[in-house]
Amino acid sequence: MKGKFYGVGVGPGDPGLLTIKAKRILEAADFIAVPKTAADKESLALKIALGAIEKRNGILELLFPMSYDGNTLGDSWNTAILAVRKKLDEGSDVAFITLGDPMVFSTFIYVYKELKRQGYETEVVPGITSFCASAARAGVSLAEGSETLAIIPSAYDCSELDDIFDKFDNVVLMKISRNFARLVDKLEKHGLKENSVMVSRCGCEDERIERELGKVDPENVHYMSTIIVKKKQL
Amino acid sequence: MKGKFYGVGVGPGDPGLLTIKAKRILEAADFIAVPKTAADKESLALKIALGAIEKRNGILELLFPMSYDGNTLGDSWNTAILAVRKKLDEGSDVAFITLGDPMVFSTFIYVYKELKRQGYETEVVPGITSFCASAARAGVSLAEGSETLAIIPSAYDCSELDDIFDKFDNVVLMKISRNFARLVDKLEKHGLKENSVMVSRCGCEDERIERELGKVDPENVHYMSTIIVKKKQL
Repeated sequence: MKGKFYGVGVGPGDPGLLTIKAKRILEAADFIAVPKTAADKESLALKIALGAIEKRNGILELLFPMSYDGNTLGDSWNTAILAVRKKLDEGSDVAFITLGDPMVFSTFIYVYKELKRQGYETEVVPGITSFCASAARAGVSLAEGSETLAIIPSAYDCSELDDIFDKFDNVVLMKISRNFARLVDKLEKHGLKENSVMVSRCGCEDERIERELGKVDPENVHYMSTIIVKKKQL
Repeated sequence: MKGKFYGVGVGPGDPGLLTIKAKRILEAADFIAVPKTAADKESLALKIALGAIEKRNGILELLFPMSYDGNTLGDSWNTAILAVRKKLDEGSDVAFITLGDPMVFSTFIYVYKELKRQGYETEVVPGITSFCASAARAGVSLAEGSETLAIIPSAYDCSELDDIFDKFDNVVLMKISRNFARLVDKLEKHGLKENSVMVSRCGCEDERIERELGKVDPENVHYMSTIIVKKKQL
């Protein structure tokens, strides 16, 4: 019998934010599949998972180099899919871990879609998103009552930001490090700079919460940072 | 010493989706505060929590009647805040449970803000949102790559929906039961009906996943239903 393919969200940083189900599945899986951007790089997702589980079986490392080249990406996905398939065909269960939630901006989605298309049994275990964890740590709501919420993953190249700031009650900006100064200018223009809070490395030992974005050095913004913008004051 | 006030998300339905930290805090808390809409109604949040924890101390029921009257709401919030304060002042830790995540559309937020303002020690433990869990169960992503995501909590009275369907790559519609037929019409007008999936009672025993919204009886849509709309095909 073929193995089952799991996607398991491990949350943003604190091992305590794995779900009970995620812990159980990772402890039982024959292989934990770990996406890495380079062979010699540590995987934060694996570090979080190992902080939560009490036993484990095999580790299957999958390489997804950072690239904007479609061919390079396609090759790495295909290689990853073949590696997972081999284990599944041998009858092993494979649990692919992702930071945050598997269905929100993760490499997992591509591998999952293809394996599902090929008829493998699959299951996704949701995880705590970085924006929910950041809101909890900063002590601000993401949305109240009938307020709207926009999640903008690549704030650096979103041309619709002005319109979104006008129309939405709450906005979450992710991947902000590359264009931080311009984003802060835009927030100021909309009168929203004082209504914004940034959480970096949420749940990790070096977590930082910044409530005065104007005082942040734009050159030193960690790539794992999220800004929560609220039209109503914080 | 005064007690600590926790907000704890219990996720959308499956007790396995509580986090490890949520379980630990609920097992240790002197009181689990349970919001209820009526004294004789069962609390789904409590049912989920009790399905996950192995021991518990006291239960503190808080009444939040369904109401659109500001005075009624204000009275119930004040009564709830006083009841929690009494326990905190006696040195008891109180953990207020919420469905999904405490920072996303929950009654907890108002109680939390006020107790924080009054100087009580607080901590929020994030939970799995219904939209992440629904995406996992339906097997569709909420957002990929640099796609945008809009979360619309009260889809029945959102006048901006046409604009949002035009501009966003992915849209989550919550509280859809009251105006389901009109929403489906709107999705059809935008050519998005076939790209939508509805999950009702996610993670509960009577969970339903509907991929053909046109075939759903508008009179029988559960209030705990979420529609995920994707501009790219499912």
